[in-house]
Amino acid sequence: MRNPTLILVSAITLTLAASRAAAGRSPKALHYYAADGSVALPDYRKWVFLGTGLGMQYIEQAKPNPPFTTVFAEPWAYDEFMKHGVWPNKTILVAEMRKSVANLSINKTGYAEVGDPVGVEVEIKDSAKGGWMFYDVATETNTAKPLPQRMACYSCHAEHAAVDNTFVQFYPTLIETAKRKATYQDR
Amino acid sequence: MRNPTLILVSAITLTLAASRAAAGRSPKALHYYAADGSVALPDYRKWVFLGTGLGMQYIEQAKPNPPFTTVFAEPWAYDEFMKHGVWPNKTILVAEMRKSVANLSINKTGYAEVGDPVGVEVEIKDSAKGGWMFYDVATETNTAKPLPQRMACYSCHAEHAAVDNTFVQFYPTLIETAKRKATYQDR
Repeated sequence: MRNPTLILVSAITLTLAASRAAAGRSPKALHYYAADGSVALPDYRKWVFLGTGLGMQYIEQAKPNPPFTTVFAEPWAYDEFMKHGVWPNKTILVAEMRKSVANLSINKTGYAEVGDPVGVEVEIKDSAKGGWMFYDVATETNTAKPLPQRMACYSCHAEHAAVDNTFVQFYPTLIETAKRKATYQDR
Repeated sequence: MRNPTLILVSAITLTLAASRAAAGRSPKALHYYAADGSVALPDYRKWVFLGTGLGMQYIEQAKPNPPFTTVFAEPWAYDEFMKHGVWPNKTILVAEMRKSVANLSINKTGYAEVGDPVGVEVEIKDSAKGGWMFYDVATETNTAKPLPQRMACYSCHAEHAAVDNTFVQFYPTLIETAKRKATYQDR
C-alpha cells in the first residue's frame, strides 16, 4: 500500500457518490441535447408513479380502447417536489400511454392495460430553455423530439395546470404538499 | 491516523453497503411480523409501477366511480423478477385503489384518479409462511393484516394468475421477461 491516505480519500469519495446516487439527489437522466434540441428518452421504468387516467386526452377518444395515461417523475425531482411544492430545474416527467381492453383474461367488468406503449410524451423543465418544454417520443429510436410552441400542450398546461405547469390536480399524492407549500392553483 | 488499513476497509465496506442499497438488492421493507402475523405497511410511494386497471375487481363495481387499482413492487424484487421471471423470496407487492371521477378540472372525456386510497392490499412471498400470503391494510394504522386462506384472493390467484401467483397478464412491462424465462402461463 503506497499511499493509504490517498486510497482512503478515494474510497470515501466513492462512498459519498454512491450515497448521493442512492438518495437520488442529482439529475441523472438529462445528459445532453442533440443539435436539433432532442434528447434521448431516459429509462423511466423505475421512476416514481405520479398518477394515471383512462381516456384523458386533448382529442376525442378512440373507443372502445381509450388509452391509460400514466405519469412518472425521476426520483430526485419527486423528492425536491415533496420538499418545496415545485419542480426543480432539470425535472423530467414522462407520460406513457397504453391501450386499454375491456375483456382480458379473467377481467370482465373493467379496463386492463395491454401491449407496448402507444405513445410517450415528455415534459422537461430547463431554465436554459426558458422553462418547460414538451417532447414527443419516437419509440423506434427512443428519441424525445421537441414540440413547437404552437402545439396545444403549451397553452393547455399554462392555462389549466394546477402547479408549476403540471397537472397536479390529477396526481393525488402531490396535492397535499402543493397546498401546504401554497403552490396549488384550483384549476 | 492510527490504523489507515482498518479505516480504509471500513470505508470500502460502507461503499459496498451504499452501492447495494442504491441498486436495491436487499429486501428492506419486510422487517418483522407481529404476533398476529400482521406487518407494518412499507412506504411504497417510490416503488416500481407494474400496472394499473380501472374497475377490475372481484366484486361488482360501484358505478359511476369504479376504482383504479395500481400495483407496485419493491425495486430489488422488480430487479430480481427481470433477471429470473419469478419473484424472489420476501417479495412484497402493493395494490392501491383510488376512486375515479369522470369529470374533474378540464377532464371531460375520461376517468381521473381522485382522493386518498379507498383500499390497499398487500401480497407477500415468504417461504417461512409456505409461500404467498395476502393482507388487507387498515389505513388508519398502516397495518397489513393477514387474510385467511378461505378468502377468494388465494384461490383466484392460484387458478388464474399468469406468473408465480401474480397477475402478470395485466402488467405489460413484465410479460416479455416472463415469456422469455418460460414462467408465463396463458390464463
